[in-house]
Amino acid sequence: MSGELDRLIHEPARLRILTILSGVDVGDFNFLLNTLGLTKGNLSSHMDKLDKAGYVAVNKTFNGRVPHTDFRITPEGRQALADYWSALDAIRQLRDNLPEEE
Amino acid sequence: MSGELDRLIHEPARLRILTILSGVDVGDFNFLLNTLGLTKGNLSSHMDKLDKAGYVAVNKTFNGRVPHTDFRITPEGRQALADYWSALDAIRQLRDNLPEEE
Repeated sequence: MSGELDRLIHEPARLRILTILSGVDVGDFNFLLNTLGLTKGNLSSHMDKLDKAGYVAVNKTFNGRVPHTDFRITPEGRQALADYWSALDAIRQLRDNLPEEE
Repeated sequence: MSGELDRLIHEPARLRILTILSGVDVGDFNFLLNTLGLTKGNLSSHMDKLDKAGYVAVNKTFNGRVPHTDFRITPEGRQALADYWSALDAIRQLRDNLPEEE
């Protein structure tokens, strides 16, 4: 069956994260934390997976001694997200494009 | 966070099954098998979960000695599917409804 859903993006929290990052130039850790209502550990784990997949770029800096982490969606992440929504749209349209039942 | 995705429906094969059943009066086992490209065991397992959740109704009959199984989406299944697509739409719209980053 064509249009497989990217399982990395299919996880609801990661779908939310990528969708949010697709709408901003850059999002920092606290912004995502507040917007998503996840725990820090959960958010870190999801960002790590998205980073390893090449879907987000991570930039760590320090404000004095306070670490600050910014995230951006990469072109690959943007494409994967667009493909994901297209695949979901195709599923949604299954309802109206069924073969005849014999 | 509101609009949690129903995990039972979130599984891609089950999302396809429910979406297909929402577009037909009744679908039999072979029709779903051919449309979805799943194995018989996989399809049975998914239908069993959807049945237990009350999202589909199962009707088993015999044509002579040949068993025949029909499935229909229930009103509860139709509502759950509509809620699922609404929740997904809400995620998709996150992109355009972000809080200001401080």
